[in-house]
Amino acid sequence: MAEEKVDNGDRTMCPIAHSTDVIGDRWSMLIVRELLLGQTRFQDIQAQTGATSQMVAARLKRLVAEGLVTREAYSQRPTRYAYRLTPKGIHLMPVILALRAWGERWCKPEGAQPATRMFHRSCGSELDLEGNCPSCGGLVSWTDMRGQPSDDWASERKRRADTFAEQRRSAPSQTEP
Amino acid sequence: MAEEKVDNGDRTMCPIAHSTDVIGDRWSMLIVRELLLGQTRFQDIQAQTGATSQMVAARLKRLVAEGLVTREAYSQRPTRYAYRLTPKGIHLMPVILALRAWGERWCKPEGAQPATRMFHRSCGSELDLEGNCPSCGGLVSWTDMRGQPSDDWASERKRRADTFAEQRRSAPSQTEP
Repeated sequence: MAEEKVDNGDRTMCPIAHSTDVIGDRWSMLIVRELLLGQTRFQDIQAQTGATSQMVAARLKRLVAEGLVTREAYSQRPTRYAYRLTPKGIHLMPVILALRAWGERWCKPEGAQPATRMFHRSCGSELDLEGNCPSCGGLVSWTDMRGQPSDDWASERKRRADTFAEQRRSAPSQTEP
Repeated sequence: MAEEKVDNGDRTMCPIAHSTDVIGDRWSMLIVRELLLGQTRFQDIQAQTGATSQMVAARLKRLVAEGLVTREAYSQRPTRYAYRLTPKGIHLMPVILALRAWGERWCKPEGAQPATRMFHRSCGSELDLEGNCPSCGGLVSWTDMRGQPSDDWASERKRRADTFAEQRRSAPSQTEP
């Protein structure tokens, strides 16, 4: 991850240099997405991101070191950890929401359905991509939103989990680092 | 940039996989930051990001290919290009603002001043990090914000520009790709 590091964020006032020094990497973002969705287990994260176990391990290690993620053993033989976001990690939600809005609007094929529907907790209305509530008439804070994967995305995620489990059964030697 | 690509965004509904496939890289984000600040020239972007010319060239090429940036020759001998964001690129502002808020809050030293102050265009009030207007009482859309680098950050940027110019004078063989 650090192979092209020329000028890290420490010597600048710029908060974007600081934040991208920590999470300016595609796989870290996809891992944060999974943790925000409530995944806690290494293999589930790997299955949904499509990253190799080495890539997931390196990113999780960095996220733990930077205080975005905690890990706690839930099994001893073999040792298995549950990964959870700290408040610092949870506060990446606005970044994820902004990447979501931009990706839905500018990157996906014309007419494609949103992967996730977002709702205003206070009134229950569905929000637009920018986070406006049509009922309350204004932007809604991320802390007052609730997300719900669409049926199609839920199916896609189920397929990924099944395919990953199948691959592990046929190649059981691949172990979690 | 693609050395660790395992599963690109094309086969998924997830907009975060799509968006980070395009701009999920620290240097691309810092280049977008510079373009949003109004920089248009290769060397100015390089000076402020601290990236090598090869790194800037590779990212700009990708950003042009993905439709986020246009380039137009402003000089013929030698050929020099001006780079500008398209609407697709400008719409990354919410991502930059979210990275800014997170970086200011969670990554910078305690008590450090924000690099940029943001104001509500409509009423002139200074916004908080989340984008709330204390006068109007609510979140402000990014299209209704105006940013202003702090004096300290402006000084830092001036120093970077001066240092870069000095280095180029002492090693003039390094040319823009």
